Amino acid sequence: MSLTVVGSMAFDEIETPFGKSGRIIGGSATFIAWAASNFVKPINQVSVVGNDFPQSELDELKAIGTALEGVQIKKDQKSFYWSGKYHMDMNTRDTLVTELNVLGDFAPVIPDSYQGSEFLILGNLSPQVQMSVIDQLKVRPKLIVMDTMNFWMDIAMDDLKAVLKRVDVLMVNDAEARQLSGEYSLVKAAHKILTMGPRYLIIKKGEHGALLFYENHVFFAPALPLEDVFDPTGAGDTFAGGFIGHLAKTKDISFENMKTAIIVGSVMASFCVEKFGTARLKEITAADIAARLDQFVQLVNFDIDLV
Amino acid sequence: MSLTVVGSMAFDEIETPFGKSGRIIGGSATFIAWAASNFVKPINQVSVVGNDFPQSELDELKAIGTALEGVQIKKDQKSFYWSGKYHMDMNTRDTLVTELNVLGDFAPVIPDSYQGSEFLILGNLSPQVQMSVIDQLKVRPKLIVMDTMNFWMDIAMDDLKAVLKRVDVLMVNDAEARQLSGEYSLVKAAHKILTMGPRYLIIKKGEHGALLFYENHVFFAPALPLEDVFDPTGAGDTFAGGFIGHLAKTKDISFENMKTAIIVGSVMASFCVEKFGTARLKEITAADIAARLDQFVQLVNFDIDLV
Repeated sequence: MSLTVVGSMAFDEIETPFGKSGRIIGGSATFIAWAASNFVKPINQVSVVGNDFPQSELDELKAIGTALEGVQIKKDQKSFYWSGKYHMDMNTRDTLVTELNVLGDFAPVIPDSYQGSEFLILGNLSPQVQMSVIDQLKVRPKLIVMDTMNFWMDIAMDDLKAVLKRVDVLMVNDAEARQLSGEYSLVKAAHKILTMGPRYLIIKKGEHGALLFYENHVFFAPALPLEDVFDPTGAGDTFAGGFIGHLAKTKDISFENMKTAIIVGSVMASFCVEKFGTARLKEITAADIAARLDQFVQLVNFDIDLV
Repeated sequence: MSLTVVGSMAFDEIETPFGKSGRIIGGSATFIAWAASNFVKPINQVSVVGNDFPQSELDELKAIGTALEGVQIKKDQKSFYWSGKYHMDMNTRDTLVTELNVLGDFAPVIPDSYQGSEFLILGNLSPQVQMSVIDQLKVRPKLIVMDTMNFWMDIAMDDLKAVLKRVDVLMVNDAEARQLSGEYSLVKAAHKILTMGPRYLIIKKGEHGALLFYENHVFFAPALPLEDVFDPTGAGDTFAGGFIGHLAKTKDISFENMKTAIIVGSVMASFCVEKFGTARLKEITAADIAARLDQFVQLVNFDIDLV
């Protein structure tokens, strides 16, 4: 059993009302790997970095069980760089700088050693790159999860719709679900998106939790109410990593187990936002995760027999 | 066992992206009574209306078990009137007209027949009016629940804080919790408010659910994801009515039972928003409520044994 993760490995520079991060490590595949590594090994990483990406970060990923054969290192280029500033409510942010660099012409190559991987998660990259990965797999994974964003809906909707037809689970935020479906109501949006390819849809609502739609069923997982949200960057990817990590660990892709996986994702995201970048994810132990899972049970558990 | 409800009985005129209501019946005490009447009788209503308030509405309230001795009818005045317009997201609205009319000099009088009521809910009215009701009660109720709004924080914060010291449960929305506490984080806001008098705090987040804080515990109840929210007016009051109705029915004011009461409140609110005003609340049966409670269980129930 193994998990293949496709996404960016990058530099972020973040400003929040609470402080400035300086230049730190980010990228969707980075957050997904750190979150999923608590549940599954190996993680087959597919990404691209420049000559400026620290070897120490690659070494740390290797140490937690991440295979790096699929991570291209472009000796004459720079890594993807994103800089952003959050507002007081931490739900909205302005992008200050985006430098695509190595991501501009990224052509992923799946190593032979990754073939046969049972779980695949396509982090937010261009639909063309996502499709190329699916095309290179000799055996279709048991489950394909896809993340995307409004940017690709703006400039590559047809490509995005083509990828949608080949995945099992789509993850988007509420605004993206509305844009993709043309429906304002999230329930209506979900029903429409579930006709576009994926059997499962996860709508992420940030601090307001996440919804899982499947056929006519809906499940809701809250975000843990925290004293402070220090930095939301990567929370969605960390959620995705916890989600796919739990599924890959248990090898159970039933709707019932997806509910549990959503809670695991919320747990992981609740750690991510406590420090800049991956700092908190690098600290936590299995005991920390178990304790916070218990907090989630307490948060939503109620006795309805009295009614 | 009985419940005393203090609040407005009024005319509303509502515009949403889906239509215009015309002049309909609203008011906090109206919604609370309609919601709570599914669980408890009698409901001792304390309010004031003008000569324009329809007798048929009073008759309907009486028919569902509402005592009206405490509802003053001012023969030479008009009822409270509010008109508002909702935006596309249904979470924000503009007030178009507010005519206080009978509410301008409302001095509630608690009839002898209401004395000894075990449960009291103070709907959104001026803190002076809320305090006057508490002062008139010869025996302190088993539980006092208070609603309020930002308007009173702006113009009567000292009076509001005095009432806070005398209640058990405060209900406010997220913006109001922030204003009352001076804290942006809802967790920090809650901890501060719990030092100001109430032992329990409910923070309503509209379509994003509600949080219940008690000592160091927190419980979250989602709002039911609906195809369409037709009119959110009165949803908060209906939530309050379901909450206090369940508590008054079960006579159990433990934290565990308050969790269930919050779910019951969410269930009732999910009906309220389906039609203008009280229209949907007037239709529903015990079977409708039971079916929707089951939907809430499905919405949040997950199996954590697998983790």
